[in-house]
Amino acid sequence: MLELEVKVGDLRVPERLLLGPGPNGIEPRVLQAMAMPTVGHLDPAFIEIMNETSALLRYVFQTKNELTIPVSGTGSAGMDCVLSNLIEEGDEVVVAVCGLFGERMVDIAERCGARVELARAPWGRMVEPDEVRKALSRLKRPKLIALVHAETSTGVMQPIEEISSICKEVGALLVVDCVTSLSGAPVLVDEWGVDAAYSGTQKCLSCPPGLSPVTLNERARKVIHERRSKPKSWYLDLTMVERYWGGERFYHHTAPVNMIYGLREALRIVAEEGLEQRWRRHALNAKAFIAGCEAMGLEIFAQEGYRLPSLITVKVPQGVDELSVRKYLLSEFNVEIGGGLGELKGKIWRFGFMGYNSKRKNVELALAALASALSALGRPTSASEAIAAADEVYREARA
Amino acid sequence: MLELEVKVGDLRVPERLLLGPGPNGIEPRVLQAMAMPTVGHLDPAFIEIMNETSALLRYVFQTKNELTIPVSGTGSAGMDCVLSNLIEEGDEVVVAVCGLFGERMVDIAERCGARVELARAPWGRMVEPDEVRKALSRLKRPKLIALVHAETSTGVMQPIEEISSICKEVGALLVVDCVTSLSGAPVLVDEWGVDAAYSGTQKCLSCPPGLSPVTLNERARKVIHERRSKPKSWYLDLTMVERYWGGERFYHHTAPVNMIYGLREALRIVAEEGLEQRWRRHALNAKAFIAGCEAMGLEIFAQEGYRLPSLITVKVPQGVDELSVRKYLLSEFNVEIGGGLGELKGKIWRFGFMGYNSKRKNVELALAALASALSALGRPTSASEAIAAADEVYREARA
Repeated sequence: MLELEVKVGDLRVPERLLLGPGPNGIEPRVLQAMAMPTVGHLDPAFIEIMNETSALLRYVFQTKNELTIPVSGTGSAGMDCVLSNLIEEGDEVVVAVCGLFGERMVDIAERCGARVELARAPWGRMVEPDEVRKALSRLKRPKLIALVHAETSTGVMQPIEEISSICKEVGALLVVDCVTSLSGAPVLVDEWGVDAAYSGTQKCLSCPPGLSPVTLNERARKVIHERRSKPKSWYLDLTMVERYWGGERFYHHTAPVNMIYGLREALRIVAEEGLEQRWRRHALNAKAFIAGCEAMGLEIFAQEGYRLPSLITVKVPQGVDELSVRKYLLSEFNVEIGGGLGELKGKIWRFGFMGYNSKRKNVELALAALASALSALGRPTSASEAIAAADEVYREARA
Repeated sequence: MLELEVKVGDLRVPERLLLGPGPNGIEPRVLQAMAMPTVGHLDPAFIEIMNETSALLRYVFQTKNELTIPVSGTGSAGMDCVLSNLIEEGDEVVVAVCGLFGERMVDIAERCGARVELARAPWGRMVEPDEVRKALSRLKRPKLIALVHAETSTGVMQPIEEISSICKEVGALLVVDCVTSLSGAPVLVDEWGVDAAYSGTQKCLSCPPGLSPVTLNERARKVIHERRSKPKSWYLDLTMVERYWGGERFYHHTAPVNMIYGLREALRIVAEEGLEQRWRRHALNAKAFIAGCEAMGLEIFAQEGYRLPSLITVKVPQGVDELSVRKYLLSEFNVEIGGGLGELKGKIWRFGFMGYNSKRKNVELALAALASALSALGRPTSASEAIAAADEVYREARA
């Protein structure tokens, strides 16, 4: 018999304030819900919970789509699931790429055997609809256009409606990644004519990571039902998953019961607040944080006018070591923020104020802590102007 | 704006005693661990938790394999992950099939583009090693042999060692599904020469569903690293997942942090008890339950000598309605058991005594409740002989 290599003690976790790209701002009520006794995945009581979760997701996605469910994996599972169910070998697709998550979509579409044309923008800017038109013009029969509504790597929010019109013109499906925007900014699946969308639980929904809400309209569903070949992933095969979530309750895989308890509670909290109020709250706190940063002489990375209210990207000033600032915030304040990914490594910080954590207290703490860190690390910065600038935003909002 | 369709109240879940095929017997300590505050998936504190979880999994799998991690999905995600990473278009594989989960492996292998030969046994029996030899003889260069150690649909435990020797002879990889056996019966990955194995959390590990522990040895890992093509699923691509779990901590997808808290606690409880004691406990409780069933005149479905200690299949007697019995147990006792799947629908019950729920109290309650249900539904059955037979097993064990 092999013995255990190490001694493993009681679970102890530090109490971080999560102000990074996610997980972010977990609701205490959600953690309590997750600790409720597990029931069977075919229990009549659980089936009611599944129905309620789907209804809540429809509200949050602003859709009437019947097929609106949490996929049993984290946000990237939703991306993989939606794309690999819709795309078959030889299909032509356009992906709008202006950051890491657009690139990930390309990788997935290529694994599905698609011919992929890119509509590009530099990281930090949104993709112009004209770029989408150009990419489409290189294809004979484009099946779908995929884009990221909330590019978590750059902090950019991509406008959807004009690209949706282009989709209608060419008869392509529109697939939207709203992992970092759902419930933090308007995501209007039906009104915008989005055919399929997916999200994650650990961003503005304020639930731990582990599930990926997805929604597909009847047009997208028909495409899946009329596939010539089975989707490559058995686990993410929506034609089977929908038989479990639909009236049939056909056993596919064992649903992550306690995670679904948590998601249901998280969505209920969104509904209690109301989506429009929640969007306003995120927008206000983002505005205050940006004002504070600018008062400190910092620059925002994402293109003006197209900034996410849930995730703000800040350029690292000349001469400041990006990682040292994050380490300082973590060790001195127990505050987690994000660094840059890919080509932005070392160049930006990513501050998330999502769901439960999108509040004035956190905005002003983040500004104060950032000023302290910069001062401690060789760039003397006074917090007072930053705080005053943020205060002014809140004052105006109340007026 | 679309409004919420339904009113969703506070989360209320019935307190079921889960004695079915899983989820089964969740440890209260695990639920508490899952409710701990979420930290970031790249937090130094979480990295320590990941390392401990891998070390604990190595002990439970009885392996020194470095690549031993929980995949971010339920048990079927582990099956999909292991097979779709090891198999490429055109590969030849043998799958041993004697139940639903063997059939699922065939489906997945075919989606990967494999040529699949079956080694079959009737549902309820184990697959004879000779059948594996025959299947192999129909192939030129078999790459792997996949089999289910614990066939959850039939209650059969498949011996591994002889088939492992056959694998060695032909130079094929051995892939083993131990979803329903891990920690409930011996699973000796290194000693048996298993190249890759996967399991689920919601069976004998007594953690809610949501993760799938997998382990691959260096031989299997090399096969993955030397693939000619990328695995079809981005989400389950082990070459990327291992860079997150390994020393690099390269971001792939956001790990389900709180589920991993739960798994770590569940594994710690296994280590506290000790694997050998845990296997003995499962074997004893299964023996007592079987003795009780037989004393009631019921027949066990799975082949004698090859029965799982964690999941016992009982034939539905002539004239008894299978579903009515399960409904009676659920409504009168809050006890969940499982029915038959596929060709066994209506023909068997599946009783699970796994992990936390493998205890005398539950065995005797299940016998008493089953006797009551049968009596109420037209087959007068006395509990006293069943209880006496089970008692006798426990008495002998103490002697």
